[in-house]
Amino acid sequence: MVVVMAPEATQADIEQIVTLVSAAGGEAFVSRGVSRTIIGLVGDVHEFGALNLRSYRGVTDVIRISVPYKLVSRENHPGRSTVTVGGVPIGPGHLTVIAGPCTVETADQTLAAAMMAQAAGASLLRGGAFKPRTSPYAFQGLGEAGLRILAEVRAETGLPVVTEVIDPASVDLVSSYADMLQVGTRSMQNFALLQAVGSADRPVLLKRGMNATVEEWLMAAEYIAQRSNLDIVLCERGIRTFETATRNTLDISAVPVAQRLSHLPVIVDPSHSGGRRDLVLPLSRAAIAAGADGIIVDVHPHPAAALCDGDQALTGADIDELAATVRTLPQLLGRTVTAGRTLSTVA
Amino acid sequence: MVVVMAPEATQADIEQIVTLVSAAGGEAFVSRGVSRTIIGLVGDVHEFGALNLRSYRGVTDVIRISVPYKLVSRENHPGRSTVTVGGVPIGPGHLTVIAGPCTVETADQTLAAAMMAQAAGASLLRGGAFKPRTSPYAFQGLGEAGLRILAEVRAETGLPVVTEVIDPASVDLVSSYADMLQVGTRSMQNFALLQAVGSADRPVLLKRGMNATVEEWLMAAEYIAQRSNLDIVLCERGIRTFETATRNTLDISAVPVAQRLSHLPVIVDPSHSGGRRDLVLPLSRAAIAAGADGIIVDVHPHPAAALCDGDQALTGADIDELAATVRTLPQLLGRTVTAGRTLSTVA
Amino acid sequence: MVVVMAPEATQADIEQIVTLVSAAGGEAFVSRGVSRTIIGLVGDVHEFGALNLRSYRGVTDVIRISVPYKLVSRENHPGRSTVTVGGVPIGPGHLTVIAGPCTVETADQTLAAAMMAQAAGASLLRGGAFKPRTSPYAFQGLGEAGLRILAEVRAETGLPVVTEVIDPASVDLVSSYADMLQVGTRSMQNFALLQAVGSADRPVLLKRGMNATVEEWLMAAEYIAQRSNLDIVLCERGIRTFETATRNTLDISAVPVAQRLSHLPVIVDPSHSGGRRDLVLPLSRAAIAAGADGIIVDVHPHPAAALCDGDQALTGADIDELAATVRTLPQLLGRTVTAGRTLSTVA
Amino acid sequence: MVVVMAPEATQADIEQIVTLVSAAGGEAFVSRGVSRTIIGLVGDVHEFGALNLRSYRGVTDVIRISVPYKLVSRENHPGRSTVTVGGVPIGPGHLTVIAGPCTVETADQTLAAAMMAQAAGASLLRGGAFKPRTSPYAFQGLGEAGLRILAEVRAETGLPVVTEVIDPASVDLVSSYADMLQVGTRSMQNFALLQAVGSADRPVLLKRGMNATVEEWLMAAEYIAQRSNLDIVLCERGIRTFETATRNTLDISAVPVAQRLSHLPVIVDPSHSGGRRDLVLPLSRAAIAAGADGIIVDVHPHPAAALCDGDQALTGADIDELAATVRTLPQLLGRTVTAGRTLSTVA
Repeated sequence: MVVVMAPEATQADIEQIVTLVSAAGGEAFVSRGVSRTIIGLVGDVHEFGALNLRSYRGVTDVIRISVPYKLVSRENHPGRSTVTVGGVPIGPGHLTVIAGPCTVETADQTLAAAMMAQAAGASLLRGGAFKPRTSPYAFQGLGEAGLRILAEVRAETGLPVVTEVIDPASVDLVSSYADMLQVGTRSMQNFALLQAVGSADRPVLLKRGMNATVEEWLMAAEYIAQRSNLDIVLCERGIRTFETATRNTLDISAVPVAQRLSHLPVIVDPSHSGGRRDLVLPLSRAAIAAGADGIIVDVHPHPAAALCDGDQALTGADIDELAATVRTLPQLLGRTVTAGRTLSTVA
Repeated sequence: MVVVMAPEATQADIEQIVTLVSAAGGEAFVSRGVSRTIIGLVGDVHEFGALNLRSYRGVTDVIRISVPYKLVSRENHPGRSTVTVGGVPIGPGHLTVIAGPCTVETADQTLAAAMMAQAAGASLLRGGAFKPRTSPYAFQGLGEAGLRILAEVRAETGLPVVTEVIDPASVDLVSSYADMLQVGTRSMQNFALLQAVGSADRPVLLKRGMNATVEEWLMAAEYIAQRSNLDIVLCERGIRTFETATRNTLDISAVPVAQRLSHLPVIVDPSHSGGRRDLVLPLSRAAIAAGADGIIVDVHPHPAAALCDGDQALTGADIDELAATVRTLPQLLGRTVTAGRTLSTVA
Repeated sequence: MVVVMAPEATQADIEQIVTLVSAAGGEAFVSRGVSRTIIGLVGDVHEFGALNLRSYRGVTDVIRISVPYKLVSRENHPGRSTVTVGGVPIGPGHLTVIAGPCTVETADQTLAAAMMAQAAGASLLRGGAFKPRTSPYAFQGLGEAGLRILAEVRAETGLPVVTEVIDPASVDLVSSYADMLQVGTRSMQNFALLQAVGSADRPVLLKRGMNATVEEWLMAAEYIAQRSNLDIVLCERGIRTFETATRNTLDISAVPVAQRLSHLPVIVDPSHSGGRRDLVLPLSRAAIAAGADGIIVDVHPHPAAALCDGDQALTGADIDELAATVRTLPQLLGRTVTAGRTLSTVA
Repeated sequence: MVVVMAPEATQADIEQIVTLVSAAGGEAFVSRGVSRTIIGLVGDVHEFGALNLRSYRGVTDVIRISVPYKLVSRENHPGRSTVTVGGVPIGPGHLTVIAGPCTVETADQTLAAAMMAQAAGASLLRGGAFKPRTSPYAFQGLGEAGLRILAEVRAETGLPVVTEVIDPASVDLVSSYADMLQVGTRSMQNFALLQAVGSADRPVLLKRGMNATVEEWLMAAEYIAQRSNLDIVLCERGIRTFETATRNTLDISAVPVAQRLSHLPVIVDPSHSGGRRDLVLPLSRAAIAAGADGIIVDVHPHPAAALCDGDQALTGADIDELAATVRTLPQLLGRTVTAGRTLSTVA
């Protein structure tokens, strides 16, 4: 930590900071410049944070130097981690495709979507039973009935299930059906939920908040890790900017940035970031090329009839094109596509 | 709703849309332009939304014309509402000051802050017992012990209590102590929480999400209203932008904009938006001048020792200056400052 | 400046930085922490900037501590400045209203708008002859013919003229007619233009770029000041954010923030930030209450016929309401409204 | 265009709009809904724009349906264009690499960088002689001396030259040396400059403004096209968002979005968007995978000694890695890397 003193700070002001830091068990190094003095603090940053140094006379600014997260940081865990979901790995060396319907509507629709997902190269099935919707008048999901459908489709296809949980009270229920718990973009700073999934024995897919910095995203992961669940996969899904041509702006740089700061795997959601079917393939390719450990894609057998986000679901010929990309691109970049469990291997 | 057809859309494409709209019980008016055709839809917008019209061939865009909220809209409720909190009105004609410590730390600190609040002209006491913190290593609040302190200070000062609730599971507990439930900026799209406070019999202070548009903010209010709780006060507290000189950017225009779209009262939080003590007074004045129905301000007897957000709490001489502003500015704009209940009137 | 070393930086890496800084005539203070070392640099920041310290092995980050501007900074010029435009002061203690048509269309329209401006309390006339328009198909202004009209209206009303210049090549021409040169939001980083107005002998109204931080705005002012023109007035006019309810988001906090960092006067444009007539009065009041040294407002005798931005021009009863605000609000805040020169004093 | 009437609009209000539109030579189609009426306008949008319809009584909103640009639009020019720079094509089917130093410093440095560029697969040389710098105290470029160096290096290497022009007055000078004129991000709405390069007989590289929507970027291109220069290449280089981990946020979606709206080629600058050397390769791959027609990359023989943006220049082993990407990735996506002219073919 660095404390920047104001030009008019007195010697007494500087000494007060040094004394406070010493009392908190730290060391303070004073650098006197021509126009201002800075004080470098060495010791336990969390102790210093509680000192409210910015409130003292003569202090202009307090700058944090080290990152505020520990468990998910690469500083303390230099290698990159692999998270396993129902036997399927997500992490370095692999490219894992998660696909399925945005929302579970019926057993038929979900099964059809799961088969499209497999055709596209997916080894995990996504599908929402509890949906956070901006409008109280929009379809909110089937709830437990949706979870049951997902479990049935898993039994039929062998695809482990990723599904969203939106309320701490339903974490146990969702965990009893799902292989991976998704925390959505609007819940990224729902700290009660983060703590609940941190105590669950399921891996967690943590979507980046649409207004969250990469640092805040990693702090949200830290909340989960603190409850001893380190099976966390980060998912970049677009941030909110001034641009209105796309629903959100996919922050493709966040993939290498997060991989450098954290050991956790990082995947990309090209469907929700753009919100447009015609962008899903280019953004999927960009994500894989940028080094993402996986992608999560919406597919739907009849997008025009979808109850949620039909505008962005892949269908028909798009599926073949995605499959072709998944077959060739990861390999060029030194990654192996994670094989889905086939019906025969399941049976 | 308006459906914009692509230049290459055929007559059959246009007729398909007209047929779908008719089948959904609506009427479609076709305007054929030189380069493109547009179709105006008349009828129930929520029915049309489910049609996924954007997924049909020849459709370029679908533009919503009417607002997506009803209960909180001024269209259906032209007058502006007044919400009463423990006997204290918030609404047109009044200027209501809510003040108190960011976080309840001790009984002494909270009582001292409450007396500062009264000196500043406040008629409601704010204070956090459950704190949503970006870092899992930061102080998370005293929980129920904090609520008890708030109730004691209410008994001593007569100030009704506004406090945050962060988890649907604790809405009943918080309601048993508080006069008004605050939904914080990070919870604005926590739909489970919105539904829970919508079923509570306490008025709600709904902070704007730091990345929420005014429309999304009103949709969040609609979630609460749908559960029949219409005692909602909106609070602008700054949005996230590229500017780093302030913690967030106070969107002062949101005050008149929200008041024009909704009948609900709108107040401003000048403390959390700027995150700097020296901005609280200018922003408080700006808020009152822009027509806000109230302000909510952090005060603390010893900011340097605060466990949360000490950098922005008013103290000492600032209190007198705020009191002077509150005495004179609202009057000039045709508002009466809401009188706090004094100890004698309470006793 | 502070150099943050990586955890894995070696003693040799640290020594290399110290040596480079010494060779550049500075001093380096090393603070060794448990997890990382930081080096405080003392001396000439601009010298250090040229060292590209971030490129050296072991360096994680380089943090600038002091502000990068000098001439416009309040550090070197603690008092706040007053700029005089055609005899009219803008600065502390005053509240100066600039008003007029967005664009000069005809002599009659400009004269009528100037009289509305005076009725509203304005002492300076604004009006555009050269218009930067997003669309090449939009009206681009009358050019020199517009400047002539402005000069005629000045002669008739006594109001000094503020008008925009968009090209370095026309600075001399515009200066020959105008009392103050406006640099628009899209030109804030047109460095050739900044240098040209810096060499002109007219005060400059520097609008904040809609995507500029306060620091970049002050750096743009520094460009002007460097050519020895220190008669600069800063104008906050809204920044670009994700919110679409208003054209831009007025950053009201920028008023006190800029006044604290710079000695230059700061005014607000409530017309262009919101882009809506119904927001001009609330935002004007907010600006004055926040401590702005003035406001600049669009007025038009027939907004529906305006060739540019008619949607935001005040007219009719709005003028009276603005006049009432200008008569009462500044006084409450210790400011005197700058008196316009009346026809009689001019004659 | 669609005019949305307020719920309280009267029949007379509606008729007034219909009359105005008819008088302007258009047709108005009225759709009466339960809660509001909308009017579809058919005819010349630019005529309607001048009507200021939003200023009329009863009008709530006016929504533009068609795109505001013509010459650069794909509606009127369905195929995608190829722009040729000194014999080197940029456009569909190709992948063109532009590389070189951010700034021309010396003849040796520029020649060394050009040879690195060639090694990386570049067929065009970039390099700045006139630099727009945020700080007036930063190096502003060598000016004409820099242009002469670029011409010499072109003679030696055969690489055509792309260089920035920042002032309308120097367009002729720069054109006399350069093969392509670059308009930088801060100049994207310098309309005088756009008009000047629109009249030049050199192709133009138009960088997206860091705060510009895709639509505004295309409008800037329209300015150039209007002066009959249609040899325009668009360059996405990152937009300004709240994220601070990278200098700007590369809007990778803008590549397919702009290619769908405009027939002009679209390239990406992975160096300036991220501002960090370690992001250049992942972002280059992402750009190519997303379908960009080219990339423009900073390289420098001695980044630590660079006078500008040394932190982001590729050097050493990075060059080989970029070369490997350029050799393999475009091919997978059906593109041929544009061959640089070799010294022998030049000679």
